[in-house]
Amino acid sequence: MTPLAVTDPPASFDVEAFLGAERGRVNAALSALASSRVEGAPTVLREAMQYALATPGKRLRPALCITAYRLLRPGPAPDAVYRLSCVVEIIHTYSLVHDDLPCMDDDELRRGRPTVHVVFDPGTAVLAGAALIPAAVRVLDDAARELGLDAPARGRMIGELCRAGAAQGMVGGQWLDLIGEQPGATVDADGLERIHRLKTGALLAVSLRMGAMAAGADEARLEALTAYGNELGLAFQIVDDVLDVTRTAEELGKTAGKDVDAGKATYPSLFGLQRAREMAVERTGHAVDALRAVDIHSPELEALAAYVLERGR
Amino acid sequence: MTPLAVTDPPASFDVEAFLGAERGRVNAALSALASSRVEGAPTVLREAMQYALATPGKRLRPALCITAYRLLRPGPAPDAVYRLSCVVEIIHTYSLVHDDLPCMDDDELRRGRPTVHVVFDPGTAVLAGAALIPAAVRVLDDAARELGLDAPARGRMIGELCRAGAAQGMVGGQWLDLIGEQPGATVDADGLERIHRLKTGALLAVSLRMGAMAAGADEARLEALTAYGNELGLAFQIVDDVLDVTRTAEELGKTAGKDVDAGKATYPSLFGLQRAREMAVERTGHAVDALRAVDIHSPELEALAAYVLERGR
Repeated sequence: MTPLAVTDPPASFDVEAFLGAERGRVNAALSALASSRVEGAPTVLREAMQYALATPGKRLRPALCITAYRLLRPGPAPDAVYRLSCVVEIIHTYSLVHDDLPCMDDDELRRGRPTVHVVFDPGTAVLAGAALIPAAVRVLDDAARELGLDAPARGRMIGELCRAGAAQGMVGGQWLDLIGEQPGATVDADGLERIHRLKTGALLAVSLRMGAMAAGADEARLEALTAYGNELGLAFQIVDDVLDVTRTAEELGKTAGKDVDAGKATYPSLFGLQRAREMAVERTGHAVDALRAVDIHSPELEALAAYVLERGR
Repeated sequence: MTPLAVTDPPASFDVEAFLGAERGRVNAALSALASSRVEGAPTVLREAMQYALATPGKRLRPALCITAYRLLRPGPAPDAVYRLSCVVEIIHTYSLVHDDLPCMDDDELRRGRPTVHVVFDPGTAVLAGAALIPAAVRVLDDAARELGLDAPARGRMIGELCRAGAAQGMVGGQWLDLIGEQPGATVDADGLERIHRLKTGALLAVSLRMGAMAAGADEARLEALTAYGNELGLAFQIVDDVLDVTRTAEELGKTAGKDVDAGKATYPSLFGLQRAREMAVERTGHAVDALRAVDIHSPELEALAAYVLERGR
């Protein structure tokens, strides 16, 4: 399949405005959940969870979830869709809290803010991260119930979330990423792709699937959205690797050049900067191709693919 | 309510033989799940999860789950009940892996074996622990399905498990326990009870509830089993505190006298050894009272209450 060129987003679609608007509603939903869902927990643990959930972010995963819902139910999405979209952001947040730990990536800054274990302590960060997992499952069940999904549909979504966040999914990717950074570790191109498929692709794909399932999508569309999510995840990581080489800490909001300093395998280190950029273009092309093959013509999803590339320019 | 004296287990009931037999079937189920449920995960992460799940243990939580099931469905329980009972052991195991971390209790031994972060590394232990949570949810859903439970019943059980393992439940208790050990922290009797209700009682109670729900128990029985689980959890922790003072490391399979060295608030430190022992007796009395109030006369559950006390003699 020849990838389409998607470097030019649809001229009529303002992706920044779209993401900004969704981010506003997602942040409001996330903030409300962060208050209501931790009631009764010990105060400081609750504050650590809330601090983590308030980490600024693009809210790309929720935007994917909401957009997938609207593919089948056009128009403004109900509030419960925004709550549903927070589920994947909660899981993403917990993975970042654990990734930043001293025994993992040992990052003291995340989007320009001190990380959870710095503001609190590593033990609290371990626990706050783990406590976000059952919280996410409960938010999912409640939001899907509000959307009128029956118990079998809700159970299926919980199963999919748990698979995406499993040792065979996101956590497996985190682990491969962790050991890939050890002195003497060698990661080849296949290994690097596996890391990113697991660490990033699995959760992006399930974000889209949850939104689409909530709207009653058929299997063909779910598969196409899965492929889009996986390819987008790879493009996203390639661009992240490129940014680590080309941007300053101030622009990134985190320590720059860290991958290079750590001698870590990245797309630029394995393929060179130019080829890495081309690969990101190819991946977003595959992503959009997968959608069009089942007649999904989504300005939002195509623009998001282009937006991921734009970041790496 | 005057607590019954339950220090003498029913003479006709051999609790050691009962626990040993259940432990054999639970360990077989747990071992099979530890193989089948981590397929496709990175090898060492998988091994860390399997190593954690193979930690020897009393398997008290599974025994409670199975016994609660048999209260309503007497006779040998099907294999799926044993798989269901493993769910709470998987959650318990993940909490131990995180509790043992250097940034938490910093324990190098657990039941005489090196802890997960010692055999592997702390980062792997964080991830292996977290990955056990979604695995437990999936085991629950599958086992409950095998037992013929419909999607609403399975969803309810998943919700209860997630509540028990939440920041308002087990993880909240772990966190309170962690900060209670900090230099200068003061924990009073109410605080100590809260720690143990959350850290231990919540999961013991849901173990019983899951077994009883799988067998179709009514709300009155579920409430009685919850009360039994909470009281048993408190008794168990009081006895654990007593053992820390009175036993050697060899007998305990972990570092002894650790609580005293850490200046940690315990039942013996707050109330003295004699009063702590009496409190454990009172708690097990309350536990059995709660059952008898709804006409549950269970030799197993009464013997288990007595057994918890026996450990502390």
